[in-house]
Amino acid sequence: MALSNLSIDGKRLLADLYKLREFGTYKTGVHRPTYSKVDMESRHWLAERMREAGLTPEIDGVGNVIGRGTGDGPRVLLGSHTETQPYAGWLDGALGVMYGLEVARAVGHGVDVVSWADEEGHYSSFPGSRSFVGLFSEADIDAGRNKYEGISMREALASAGLAGLPRIGFEPGRYRGYLEAHIEQGDTLESTGEKIGIVTSIVGIWAFRITFEGVQNHAGTTRMAIRRDAGLAAAKLVTAIDALFPTICAERTVWTVGRITLDPGAGSIIPGGAEVIFQIRDADPAVLQRMAAALEGLVAEADTGPCRAVLHDVSRSTPSLMDPGFQDALERAAERYAPGQHQRMPSGAGHDAQWLARVMPAAMVFVPSIGGISHHWSEDTSDADIVLGCQVMAAAVAEILDR
Amino acid sequence: MALSNLSIDGKRLLADLYKLREFGTYKTGVHRPTYSKVDMESRHWLAERMREAGLTPEIDGVGNVIGRGTGDGPRVLLGSHTETQPYAGWLDGALGVMYGLEVARAVGHGVDVVSWADEEGHYSSFPGSRSFVGLFSEADIDAGRNKYEGISMREALASAGLAGLPRIGFEPGRYRGYLEAHIEQGDTLESTGEKIGIVTSIVGIWAFRITFEGVQNHAGTTRMAIRRDAGLAAAKLVTAIDALFPTICAERTVWTVGRITLDPGAGSIIPGGAEVIFQIRDADPAVLQRMAAALEGLVAEADTGPCRAVLHDVSRSTPSLMDPGFQDALERAAERYAPGQHQRMPSGAGHDAQWLARVMPAAMVFVPSIGGISHHWSEDTSDADIVLGCQVMAAAVAEILDR
Repeated sequence: MALSNLSIDGKRLLADLYKLREFGTYKTGVHRPTYSKVDMESRHWLAERMREAGLTPEIDGVGNVIGRGTGDGPRVLLGSHTETQPYAGWLDGALGVMYGLEVARAVGHGVDVVSWADEEGHYSSFPGSRSFVGLFSEADIDAGRNKYEGISMREALASAGLAGLPRIGFEPGRYRGYLEAHIEQGDTLESTGEKIGIVTSIVGIWAFRITFEGVQNHAGTTRMAIRRDAGLAAAKLVTAIDALFPTICAERTVWTVGRITLDPGAGSIIPGGAEVIFQIRDADPAVLQRMAAALEGLVAEADTGPCRAVLHDVSRSTPSLMDPGFQDALERAAERYAPGQHQRMPSGAGHDAQWLARVMPAAMVFVPSIGGISHHWSEDTSDADIVLGCQVMAAAVAEILDR
Repeated sequence: MALSNLSIDGKRLLADLYKLREFGTYKTGVHRPTYSKVDMESRHWLAERMREAGLTPEIDGVGNVIGRGTGDGPRVLLGSHTETQPYAGWLDGALGVMYGLEVARAVGHGVDVVSWADEEGHYSSFPGSRSFVGLFSEADIDAGRNKYEGISMREALASAGLAGLPRIGFEPGRYRGYLEAHIEQGDTLESTGEKIGIVTSIVGIWAFRITFEGVQNHAGTTRMAIRRDAGLAAAKLVTAIDALFPTICAERTVWTVGRITLDPGAGSIIPGGAEVIFQIRDADPAVLQRMAAALEGLVAEADTGPCRAVLHDVSRSTPSLMDPGFQDALERAAERYAPGQHQRMPSGAGHDAQWLARVMPAAMVFVPSIGGISHHWSEDTSDADIVLGCQVMAAAVAEILDR
């Protein structure tokens, strides 16, 4: 059938990506925090591109931008997100949304396109896709707070002009499934010389906060022997994790201390408080459980020292399996356009697809990241790889709509 | 002579201290950052109290508040500072300034009173007392920057209404010397049941910044083996200092990591940069030199790891000896009002007296800190100890003026 021979327009795709990068350009990357002025400008720009592509765009009450087509027949939903991490890359998220738009234009019908709000978690954990699948309540919005600046999600939505808008929910039976393209954000494809990654599962992420309570005091007059230094306790825990975890992890387990904060954080004051932001990722729930238990042990041990140490659960996401049929379709498309240059692989990063997978078949396709870099302004992918990935996705979508 | 029998008015002293606490009250402490609105209000209030005490007050171009008396005869300068550390105690600094005012009132002549600007170092290192002794240039003002908020000292001075005002300098021959009272900020007096500390020397403080440069990357997709995690490198250095320093320090050496900052500091990003704020204090320059050399070794060792580690000197102050004759006068006064309840001791904290000691005899007297707590809002000293300390200081000043 004609669909399986369709070609995307690589130049048009790249032009759209370059244009989107202009919203919040930082060096060769982008600073486009969720609900910021420039983020909202980019959402309205995207809605206009959807309209030009023959879709009916809508920005909903949580900031999702959804472009829906009319007419009967089979239909898929394609998308990702358009806001960025602070001072981060131009393709993380943007690539998947622009692929969706280009595939919609190339296929001509049967494709809805979406940009999920706040996948990068400035205010909450996947509020856009969770809202769509019915797992993000008004109370969750009330609880949302910007993790860098502290303003509430309600305030931010109001400032962005989104207060009171309806939230668009999942319409049962409308879609055969959801597909999301993304940069790999690691160096697996690059190091093997491959061009396409077909995602088998999305890791679970278990996030924690560890707090330490000591006694704030003067850094000159308090003898070492009587100090209860919360900052030192925090540094020792981080060092202890680094010593223990490699001995108990699985092959692809990763863990990260993303932030250490000392209170009050002045040179001449012994810190009375400290906080460590920590996370563990693995595709196997049993591994996550084992690592979390080890962390509990280390924090309990720290708690026997001069400072009180407490482990707080922030979130525990379940690893998510991608649809086997969609994986097969993506593999056939990859073999056609990049023969022998594709592999199946888990995703070490969380993606909106893990929430969509709860209500419909879902799949993801990866393209190479130069140097494996992401969440940094220098993140990049070659133009040729960008265009190839979109062509593979278009062919897979054509097959799925064809069935 | 009459002077040596003078009595201070304890109720008046306490009433002034309580009143001063109202500028920026935080719980039972005070938040009164240098040049803030509330800090400037307190300086103008202080100037009015000086005027009532028969002194001629002046606020100078760096924020020092100086009240000077008229007439001939011997003269001493008494003071300390009135701004506070963030959310800190009500007596740190305030006590010494109010002692000065009360002693000036009790003695009636021969006492000038001063509140040095920014002893707590919000913008620079002792700008007030260094300006007075001629060791703080216009270029130093240009370089000053708020360490919490980043605004420049010039901007802050302008906002405080101080731009363009003359700076008052030391007038050779005017003073027999400088005396400063302060809370001990440690638990030595309390633990021995003593009431008065006579300071023998002020420690040297050597301050450092250690920076780490790794590679910022995604916390889910970057394998552990290829990470260059600047936050982990920082935590390991802090832990290594804690292991090594107790084996090479002197009896009263102290060292402190006051702040650890990870860049960018988000849960899902491997930190590409980190900064550790560190300081060492001792009264012996040789000990400071030994500890600094050990730190250099640890940083050099860290630099051989996956991240670049660099040691930056921030400042190196010289330990400062207090005047022996003034110490003797304070001891005689202490023995009279608190017989057997005083001791000579070094100061682990830096004080403006260390700068005044460069141009005239200088001395310090300490009163007990409850629980040894300072640089925290719960810092306190009993009313009886506050009044006793002022009486001792007044008697010593009387003897010094009498000579």
